[in-house]
Amino acid sequence: AAGSAHANDSVMKNQSDPNNWASQLGNYAGQRYSPLNQITTDNVKNLQVAWTFSTGVLRGHEGGPIVIGDVMYIHTPFPNKVFALDLKNPGRILWKYESVQDPNVIPIMCCDTVNRGVAVADGKLFLAQADNTLVALDAASGKELWKAKNGDHTKGESLTAAPLVVKDKVFVGISGGEFGVRGHLTAYDTTSGKMLWRAFSTGPDADVKIDPAKTMMMGKPLGQKDLGVSTWPGDEWKRGGGTTWGWYTYDPELNLIYYGTGNPGSWNPTQRAVDKDRNKSDNKWSMTIFARDPDTGDAKWVYQKTPFDEWDFDGVNENILANINVNGQPRKVLVNFDRNGFAYTIDRATGELLVAQKYDPTVNWASEVDMTTGRPKVVDKYSTFANGEDKNSTAVCPAALGTKDQQPASFSPDTGLFYVPTNHICMDYEPFSVAYTAGQAYVGSTVSMYPTPNSHGGMGNFIAWDAAAGKIVWSRPERFAVWSGALTTKGGVAYYGTLEGYIIAVDMKDGKELWRFKTPSGIIGNINTYTQGGKQYIAVLSGVGGWAGIGLAAGLTQESGANAWHEAVHPGHRPGTVATAGLGAVGAHASLGEYTQLGGVLTVFHVPDQK
Amino acid sequence: AAGSAHANDSVMKNQSDPNNWASQLGNYAGQRYSPLNQITTDNVKNLQVAWTFSTGVLRGHEGGPIVIGDVMYIHTPFPNKVFALDLKNPGRILWKYESVQDPNVIPIMCCDTVNRGVAVADGKLFLAQADNTLVALDAASGKELWKAKNGDHTKGESLTAAPLVVKDKVFVGISGGEFGVRGHLTAYDTTSGKMLWRAFSTGPDADVKIDPAKTMMMGKPLGQKDLGVSTWPGDEWKRGGGTTWGWYTYDPELNLIYYGTGNPGSWNPTQRAVDKDRNKSDNKWSMTIFARDPDTGDAKWVYQKTPFDEWDFDGVNENILANINVNGQPRKVLVNFDRNGFAYTIDRATGELLVAQKYDPTVNWASEVDMTTGRPKVVDKYSTFANGEDKNSTAVCPAALGTKDQQPASFSPDTGLFYVPTNHICMDYEPFSVAYTAGQAYVGSTVSMYPTPNSHGGMGNFIAWDAAAGKIVWSRPERFAVWSGALTTKGGVAYYGTLEGYIIAVDMKDGKELWRFKTPSGIIGNINTYTQGGKQYIAVLSGVGGWAGIGLAAGLTQESGANAWHEAVHPGHRPGTVATAGLGAVGAHASLGEYTQLGGVLTVFHVPDQK
Ligand SMILES: O=C(O)c1cc(C(=O)O)c2c(n1)C(=O)C(=O)c1cc(C(=O)O)[nH]c1-2
Ligand SMILES: O=C(O)c1cc(C(=O)O)c2c(n1)C(=O)C(=O)c1cc(C(=O)O)[nH]c1-2
Repeated sequence: AAGSAHANDSVMKNQSDPNNWASQLGNYAGQRYSPLNQITTDNVKNLQVAWTFSTGVLRGHEGGPIVIGDVMYIHTPFPNKVFALDLKNPGRILWKYESVQDPNVIPIMCCDTVNRGVAVADGKLFLAQADNTLVALDAASGKELWKAKNGDHTKGESLTAAPLVVKDKVFVGISGGEFGVRGHLTAYDTTSGKMLWRAFSTGPDADVKIDPAKTMMMGKPLGQKDLGVSTWPGDEWKRGGGTTWGWYTYDPELNLIYYGTGNPGSWNPTQRAVDKDRNKSDNKWSMTIFARDPDTGDAKWVYQKTPFDEWDFDGVNENILANINVNGQPRKVLVNFDRNGFAYTIDRATGELLVAQKYDPTVNWASEVDMTTGRPKVVDKYSTFANGEDKNSTAVCPAALGTKDQQPASFSPDTGLFYVPTNHICMDYEPFSVAYTAGQAYVGSTVSMYPTPNSHGGMGNFIAWDAAAGKIVWSRPERFAVWSGALTTKGGVAYYGTLEGYIIAVDMKDGKELWRFKTPSGIIGNINTYTQGGKQYIAVLSGVGGWAGIGLAAGLTQESGANAWHEAVHPGHRPGTVATAGLGAVGAHASLGEYTQLGGVLTVFHVPDQK
Repeated sequence: AAGSAHANDSVMKNQSDPNNWASQLGNYAGQRYSPLNQITTDNVKNLQVAWTFSTGVLRGHEGGPIVIGDVMYIHTPFPNKVFALDLKNPGRILWKYESVQDPNVIPIMCCDTVNRGVAVADGKLFLAQADNTLVALDAASGKELWKAKNGDHTKGESLTAAPLVVKDKVFVGISGGEFGVRGHLTAYDTTSGKMLWRAFSTGPDADVKIDPAKTMMMGKPLGQKDLGVSTWPGDEWKRGGGTTWGWYTYDPELNLIYYGTGNPGSWNPTQRAVDKDRNKSDNKWSMTIFARDPDTGDAKWVYQKTPFDEWDFDGVNENILANINVNGQPRKVLVNFDRNGFAYTIDRATGELLVAQKYDPTVNWASEVDMTTGRPKVVDKYSTFANGEDKNSTAVCPAALGTKDQQPASFSPDTGLFYVPTNHICMDYEPFSVAYTAGQAYVGSTVSMYPTPNSHGGMGNFIAWDAAAGKIVWSRPERFAVWSGALTTKGGVAYYGTLEGYIIAVDMKDGKELWRFKTPSGIIGNINTYTQGGKQYIAVLSGVGGWAGIGLAAGLTQESGANAWHEAVHPGHRPGTVATAGLGAVGAHASLGEYTQLGGVLTVFHVPDQK
């Protein structure tokens, strides 16, 4: 195809073979869909564990196994071990990689020491280490090929996102929005490790790689220049966040990569207001979807979902590329389930906004998205800026954890629907003034979270979403936030994992549960599928943690741990202590420890042969 | 029965119900046999994983789950967490216990931070913590009832053994043979935690609770007094080892508890010789089986298996009580698979030696056991004393790891045979002079281990043993030492685990493999069985470690870790570095890391219902 000339040939080849699970999101489009159909709605009830593998690392295991041919590659959170496993001899380690990292990076990782996985291309494996080192390994031997330094943890920078390879480039983001890090996406040469370009999320157009005459928003050129400076007070853009820790997708035909940027600087909006006027204070380009040319880094179009964030609704969630009918017309869209609770359907060539609807009806901070301006209509009552510093804005839905966070959704071309792991949590949010010190927390809000009031009592839902209509098709309540990545399959079965540790298979038609299994630990990894020896397998990394599980992962469920956390974030203040620790996530998930404990384990499932 | 008046009624009641797995070794006799027969040689091939549970703790998981009714109790290595799990709602944590322990106990644990499990009796759960605290919990709530201090880690003392409850007493041993600890067994009151008696392994008869006129050896009263002093040079008995870290068994009818003592003081025999004469230097009562009255602690009989140890053949292995025919006569025997490679069949009432044969034919340090004296005939060539200090005695079989170590064997009353997880490893052993400092390593030998030469190349065997004939019935070779506890069942199936992480089911008749499954990590725990809701389950804790896995568990497979280990044990010396680290165990199992990684996970198996 014409498109593949723009892609990385080895990635395209590996992805096009459904026997592989070649990249973290399954394909460039980020669909997390597999054409495999040996496991069906009929026989999924017979799914059993084929084999298991402990990674030897505790704390949260995000991302999932990559399978290419007879080799599976898995990774761990800090210290970011990588294992190549022989699928012909399950669990046999072909090689292992681990480099020594400065453990001082641990405390500056906001939301657990997670890593969303490795990328494989051209016989190389790319690992983005917590300590900001991008490592290229020989995929056959595990031998180190090169290393590149993408950031500095003494300034609060770290890496958690999975790299993406397009052509001869590997793309890497940056984390540290809670430390006043200025976000960027960077392209490295896959062969040499040389930096090719870097596009910042804030600052002058040259840094952001925006051309106001060409870069589009809502289908039209931007016009205004240097919005990444002027929408901030003073030089606040220099600590303006907009980090890039989510998933990246790519359209080979349009030759565009897509990713989002995180929250602007501190969580205290007052500190980010120009002339105390929210209308002057979009804090661009935080909370923005970028479509960029992978060759040059130039921004083709931008769309800011939550201008002037007041709730930590990082806009980094994955942009899933799909071709669906909208208003009877076939459209090449990008669908984004944003933290802020709106699901956006956007023309991925132009950035034109087609649909923006709440994918949890209890979302209340905004009434709707203005389809002309693309801006949310903020409800005053829930405006933490309007309410002001040191005032507690209560019952804001969703909580800072968002209606969805890092957990990637899935799109099935068979049903034309999206299958979305979601959170169902609200919050109280009390901003406070905070001073910036490089390498220190730059949060500026006390947050407390709880299950959405007057709902089913649980903190999550797994939903099917019609992105053309902007409507929930069905919804399955869950006790905890659904923090694992979903999978859909040609077999008609969708899969997701729960924080208690269940992997659950449901009928894609109606969400009816077909099967469940209790894995060793809570699941925040993604469920992947592949074949080996002609047989379909389902594989997932358990290992509770991530932001939702930070209480367990970082020991914040005990008073002593929580106090230490508060001391680092707001010296001298211990508001609510355990409840508000871990950026507010600990209280909501406090009972998680009654269901599961830490531990990284790969579990591989199959339908056993008849005996 | 008359016997049960001497036992603990709740323990007897729980043990007699085959639906439970009521104590670590299954019953007081230590048989690790279950009368359950739903899982048979026919259907074991259909065994599948029912559910899993990560303990959240890395390093070696020994012992196994206790099941009483619908509750399962599991424990972890340091920090010795205990979980009560609801079997009606698999993996749901009813309560969790964890107390804060001084991490300085970790480096004085010779052979990983293992714990061999908890005991449950009278609605209480007893946990022997690494830091020498014996804890009693309310088994229903996990509430702490009392704590008792059994030792002092600053002197090199620690706890790893599972406590045993008989009547109103709970028995606890002590570890630290590599730190010159003087071993003892101690009885505590189950209700108050008060110490009731303590019997030392070395020293004056009063301390050892020996009465030379009554205490028997080889069926006759000892006669001589204070052998625990006179068989040592000077006051070496005060740092004389004889620690009691193995398994304890009990005969309710004879009202005798059985246990063994470990290696004498340092590993350098020259330092333990009286007048440089081995004939004067039995180093009593190290390496000894004790039969004691649980009420008074008095020694009924003793049998020293390896007088004047020269190879670290700790005599602590479990004494399995069985009633078998020996020379056509029904005998109440005790069978002991000793580290030194001999299996002893002993009249358990009198201590009379009935059979003593090698259970690995390659054992070479002694030619045989003299049946009149009970003493091994040491082969000069392998005498590390005869060869002398700073001389390397090579190709001694077995290695210090023994032909069997902590991994408990099983006895099936159905076949009358013993099923024994064994090691198949030899060593080079070079003693050196060492000075005693309390709390410092007191080892005095450099050891290097390797697979038994000219054999199958592997380092383990799983064997069936005829304890009346003193003969191997069948033997299955394994790549690594078989470090997990065996299980036999009425269903005709025996189970064991491997260091690679496989649980393996074999036909008890011929050892033929019927089924295997790769659990998340190497298995050094014991395989237990129980029913829940009328259905039979098999359960095991994975989590590689123990002495065999110390390289992985303690990070000694890397030069830096190995160097640090050597520095602590023999300042300024780094002989062989990695190979000889971890008391010589690291080199032999160096390739283990290609098969498995750390991680404590419970895996529960069942035969799924037909769907
Ligand atoms: O602002 C940032 O740089 C940043 C980084 C990360 C990260 O790298 O994991 C998270 C977040 N923010 C965040 O807001 C968030 O909700 C979050 C959840 C998780 C997770 O892995 O569970 N990471 C992060
Ligand atoms: O002398 C002692 O006090 C002592 C203690 C322990 C222990 O407590 O684990 C072991 C040993 N020795 C020992 O010799 C040995 O082989 C051993 C193996 C293991 C194990 O758990 O794998 N522990 C111990």
